[in-house]
Amino acid sequence: MIHFNCDYVEAGHPKILEKIVESNMEQLPGYGVDHYCDSARAKIQAACKKTNADVHFMVGGTQTNLTAISAILRPYQGVLAADEGHIACHETGAIEATGHKVLPLPAVNGLITGDQVREYCHHHLADTMREHTVQPGMVYISFPTEIGTLYTKEQLIDLSNACHEYDLPLYIDGARLGYGLTSPDVDVTLEDIADLSDMFYIGGTKCGALMGEALVITNESLKKDFRYIIKEHGALLAKGRLLGIQFDVLFEDNLYFDICKKAVDYSIAIRKAFEAKGIEMWGDSSTNQQFAILTDAQMETLSKKYVYQEWEKYDDTHTIIRFCTSWGTKEENVQELLKDIAAL
Amino acid sequence: MIHFNCDYVEAGHPKILEKIVESNMEQLPGYGVDHYCDSARAKIQAACKKTNADVHFMVGGTQTNLTAISAILRPYQGVLAADEGHIACHETGAIEATGHKVLPLPAVNGLITGDQVREYCHHHLADTMREHTVQPGMVYISFPTEIGTLYTKEQLIDLSNACHEYDLPLYIDGARLGYGLTSPDVDVTLEDIADLSDMFYIGGTKCGALMGEALVITNESLKKDFRYIIKEHGALLAKGRLLGIQFDVLFEDNLYFDICKKAVDYSIAIRKAFEAKGIEMWGDSSTNQQFAILTDAQMETLSKKYVYQEWEKYDDTHTIIRFCTSWGTKEENVQELLKDIAAL
Amino acid sequence: MIHFNCDYVEAGHPKILEKIVESNMEQLPGYGVDHYCDSARAKIQAACKKTNADVHFMVGGTQTNLTAISAILRPYQGVLAADEGHIACHETGAIEATGHKVLPLPAVNGLITGDQVREYCHHHLADTMREHTVQPGMVYISFPTEIGTLYTKEQLIDLSNACHEYDLPLYIDGARLGYGLTSPDVDVTLEDIADLSDMFYIGGTKCGALMGEALVITNESLKKDFRYIIKEHGALLAKGRLLGIQFDVLFEDNLYFDICKKAVDYSIAIRKAFEAKGIEMWGDSSTNQQFAILTDAQMETLSKKYVYQEWEKYDDTHTIIRFCTSWGTKEENVQELLKDIAAL
Amino acid sequence: MIHFNCDYVEAGHPKILEKIVESNMEQLPGYGVDHYCDSARAKIQAACKKTNADVHFMVGGTQTNLTAISAILRPYQGVLAADEGHIACHETGAIEATGHKVLPLPAVNGLITGDQVREYCHHHLADTMREHTVQPGMVYISFPTEIGTLYTKEQLIDLSNACHEYDLPLYIDGARLGYGLTSPDVDVTLEDIADLSDMFYIGGTKCGALMGEALVITNESLKKDFRYIIKEHGALLAKGRLLGIQFDVLFEDNLYFDICKKAVDYSIAIRKAFEAKGIEMWGDSSTNQQFAILTDAQMETLSKKYVYQEWEKYDDTHTIIRFCTSWGTKEENVQELLKDIAAL
Repeated sequence: MIHFNCDYVEAGHPKILEKIVESNMEQLPGYGVDHYCDSARAKIQAACKKTNADVHFMVGGTQTNLTAISAILRPYQGVLAADEGHIACHETGAIEATGHKVLPLPAVNGLITGDQVREYCHHHLADTMREHTVQPGMVYISFPTEIGTLYTKEQLIDLSNACHEYDLPLYIDGARLGYGLTSPDVDVTLEDIADLSDMFYIGGTKCGALMGEALVITNESLKKDFRYIIKEHGALLAKGRLLGIQFDVLFEDNLYFDICKKAVDYSIAIRKAFEAKGIEMWGDSSTNQQFAILTDAQMETLSKKYVYQEWEKYDDTHTIIRFCTSWGTKEENVQELLKDIAAL
Repeated sequence: MIHFNCDYVEAGHPKILEKIVESNMEQLPGYGVDHYCDSARAKIQAACKKTNADVHFMVGGTQTNLTAISAILRPYQGVLAADEGHIACHETGAIEATGHKVLPLPAVNGLITGDQVREYCHHHLADTMREHTVQPGMVYISFPTEIGTLYTKEQLIDLSNACHEYDLPLYIDGARLGYGLTSPDVDVTLEDIADLSDMFYIGGTKCGALMGEALVITNESLKKDFRYIIKEHGALLAKGRLLGIQFDVLFEDNLYFDICKKAVDYSIAIRKAFEAKGIEMWGDSSTNQQFAILTDAQMETLSKKYVYQEWEKYDDTHTIIRFCTSWGTKEENVQELLKDIAAL
Repeated sequence: MIHFNCDYVEAGHPKILEKIVESNMEQLPGYGVDHYCDSARAKIQAACKKTNADVHFMVGGTQTNLTAISAILRPYQGVLAADEGHIACHETGAIEATGHKVLPLPAVNGLITGDQVREYCHHHLADTMREHTVQPGMVYISFPTEIGTLYTKEQLIDLSNACHEYDLPLYIDGARLGYGLTSPDVDVTLEDIADLSDMFYIGGTKCGALMGEALVITNESLKKDFRYIIKEHGALLAKGRLLGIQFDVLFEDNLYFDICKKAVDYSIAIRKAFEAKGIEMWGDSSTNQQFAILTDAQMETLSKKYVYQEWEKYDDTHTIIRFCTSWGTKEENVQELLKDIAAL
Repeated sequence: MIHFNCDYVEAGHPKILEKIVESNMEQLPGYGVDHYCDSARAKIQAACKKTNADVHFMVGGTQTNLTAISAILRPYQGVLAADEGHIACHETGAIEATGHKVLPLPAVNGLITGDQVREYCHHHLADTMREHTVQPGMVYISFPTEIGTLYTKEQLIDLSNACHEYDLPLYIDGARLGYGLTSPDVDVTLEDIADLSDMFYIGGTKCGALMGEALVITNESLKKDFRYIIKEHGALLAKGRLLGIQFDVLFEDNLYFDICKKAVDYSIAIRKAFEAKGIEMWGDSSTNQQFAILTDAQMETLSKKYVYQEWEKYDDTHTIIRFCTSWGTKEENVQELLKDIAAL
């Protein structure tokens, strides 16, 4: 079986493994203060053009989100997020477990807007009994979104402006950031992400690493004592070198972007194959995930050779099916899938 | 410099790396349900002689502790632990962050006793206003303890009995379990650990793995819905294979115990070297950590070649210094240290 | 100005004050174990026909809700509730502050249905990755709802059945229970409430008491150690007598129901006055709250003499206005309002 | 039986009841913004000579402590407190339930010192791995302490200085503040309390009120959004007037101090009676609690007429027994006790 069901079916990029093996017996301090972490930090700061940014490495996305969000919010504050946002749906209430409500905004094509933020805050502040409701304390977005869509630079600027008008830090979940920044449709750069947000993370787990996310804090007021809060959540990796090495390799010679670009190219090819076949796509993803609306017969045919993810029922006779590519997707498997789609 | 400061200065055992590299492009499901995890689980169940035990893999010790403890306790309950216990001292209040108080019992040589548990519970139940105090809800011990000491089988049985007399689950933090079970002084087996506790973890991070701990749940009533609580704490690794592979390798051909045994041998040799020199040792560790009481001059001499950990001031002129060995410690480095101790 | 804005503008029923004054210097034990509390408990058990029910007195509704809900749920569980439910909207995230997500169900006329619960649970259980989402752990409803509507007995039975099909305790917020049980439209009795739920509270604050709610636990498995969890949330009143006396008075000679009945009669009269005037009502409340859809001119006229609550904008030219009556509402004020409505 | 077991055996001062009855049907806004609350606030500000202080009314001590402490601390911080402090012992882990560790300092005579705070903070900051431990974030003391003792002005200044040297807010639990400020031994005034702390509460429950504590925030940076956090903890009383009226009455014509003074006089008389009899006292309380070390025979004799509290076993043949007086203690009961002590 060939897996297109998610973007973490393979382990890690060979160059990463090579470096881990090579440095294996090197004796290094724990908890993220070794020279590989330092080097990775410097490369990420350079890539973001933020030499003063703090960079912390954590193991996974939910862990990074809950640590970041609980560090930013005051106890009575909540986080505004798309109702389809990862923290709203797929983290088993990890944010609530830290005491904070996720305040859902109805997303369109996965996206929320600056005006939705403005309206929510305006309405909150206009309420004379507002202390009976959760105060919006920050905004969470995913770039790309959970369904592969992207904010334009204009949308992102507007969202960032809205946040700052109401004193809300903007946090960007970049679990698939590499696939977003290498989309043919993107007009946002890593530098823009760093400029327009207060904190964001560069996803490693889904973008070439064995595991690991690099949290970047650009807002000075959010940096203080951050290592305490990482440790408090059991998120300070003893052998921090493992995360440092991975990001050090990924941010050497543009590797992170090169491998993500290839996955996006494959994904677009798959989308085009479906469209050429007259199969309707759900959402307009131009990143590494594609959502095709398939009949039961089409699903059955493809299921003989491929593992995909059933996203949700579309109607009585159709289902939305997700196909993901990743840094690890093989050319030959894509070619096979393209052929099989054409033959549907 | 040669590092003896902690037991995670190297990365992971070469056999682990080999297997990770070898399986790298194998397409596998995420979140710990792949065949490597299944195989590792079966081996651990067999090693514990508990075919019905649930085994979950997590990344680190604090993460494992906070997940396990918050799963066991009711909201108003606390966890009894040695006042020197890892959860009481060195986890930045991770247990409190989940809403629970750590109830410290004064440890002697790192150990607590069944009678301390009995007395605490008896006193609690005898208090007519007991609902104004935290109810003891479980007991936490470390095996070996944070200072390298071991419970005898008799002590462990007594502690286990005390727990069960008061309906308290016994949880054992086995961050360094391998070094405990291979001590020359141990009379406890892995099977005993599994028999006498309700939940425990087999430490990987400090015992040969890149990272990872295997949580073993033997008490039927504590198994339900455990994966939810792992995910809720951001502790469900996407590429769970990485943990499965490591424990699968460690529990193949007795590797886990063999590599730990070697480290313990080195440690005992270091202890004997200090003792031969007339240097007093702090505590009677027979595992992989040794605590020597050194003068400033002795410290200075050793600091030229070795990285050790200053544990705490002993008196005005002496400091307690920790030397750790691990699966990764090199024979030649130990020989050198032994020579240098002899020359002090 | 005459206040119809909420149901807690006066203090407490005169008979309550009388009894508090009369017993003032009586020396009594603290924390709810005095004879007034015992007597009140017995009367409530009798009124519910549940002699084995546990009854605990707390001071306010949010306090009671957060204590009850955090006692019922496991850490990774959430509470299903109407999206307009008090816990979802107007408690500043008090439930989330205890670590639990409120899982909103779209309400119609303030009500949710058994089938909504069934569908949610079915969908959850059918999800192969359900441990990535919050597990529904209980259902919360308000009786009457926040907008004054009532579940019929049939609806309540269906909801209760749905809960028990999926092993979910049903919790009923009875902040305005007295007004619900004395509605001309009600076919549910206090006994039904006790039979069909696992835990519920009888509201005092809005129904004649100075403050106080009586939490009734009928499900045996939810009773254990409840006083600990009350104290843990700072909700164990030192002079518990104050709550005991109030419920003892309210449940003597049908007082609770008599005073609520009068308020409901006034409320219905106000509704009829609006309807007679051709003014549209929002929702079909038959309890102590009425929501009239008024023009700006009508609002302005009434605002000269009355304090009401602006609920929300209805359209560009109309606003939904809430008028509440209570046990403390005076006949003469109602007559005046009826006259003024007629004159609009 | 005559009760001396605690200081909340009677309900509330008659003048308070009078005012509650008198104002009962007055229609007032909820949640603490009525004119009685405003008046009480102004009187308290005046009494503290802090016209800019924020004053919030809550119902009980544990509630006030958990609200205040969780508002002050960052998630990874803990609160330094005497190991005998109320939050450390008798609040069922209410502070931990908000995610924070209580960091106990060994008390002498109920008191902690500025140097203990300095030493703890110094040690924390000197630790190179301090992010693995809970950061001290504030200091909690009780005035008077749980065993009736008092800080001198010099001690309080030193403690306050220590706090401010390390940027820690000082919070004072004044559950029995009235009895402390009217002790014959006190050299601290209400104004001093307000000057030397950042936040403190004036206890009502134990000092004449039916219930209620007045939290005073003098540190500007701690005032923001405080009503949200009160509501979040279910601590915003609907009929806030009840708290406002009580403090308005208590701070009229020196009533609070007059009634507490009388209780302290009685308490000192009881102490002297024991001492005259050669009975040893435990601790040197000069407030409203006295702790006598009694033989079993003495206890039995007194238990025929009096309810007292068994504090703890002193030795095999003696027990520490607490006698409390309060605003509600009757002269004749004290006389009787004095006679009976003399007759022991």
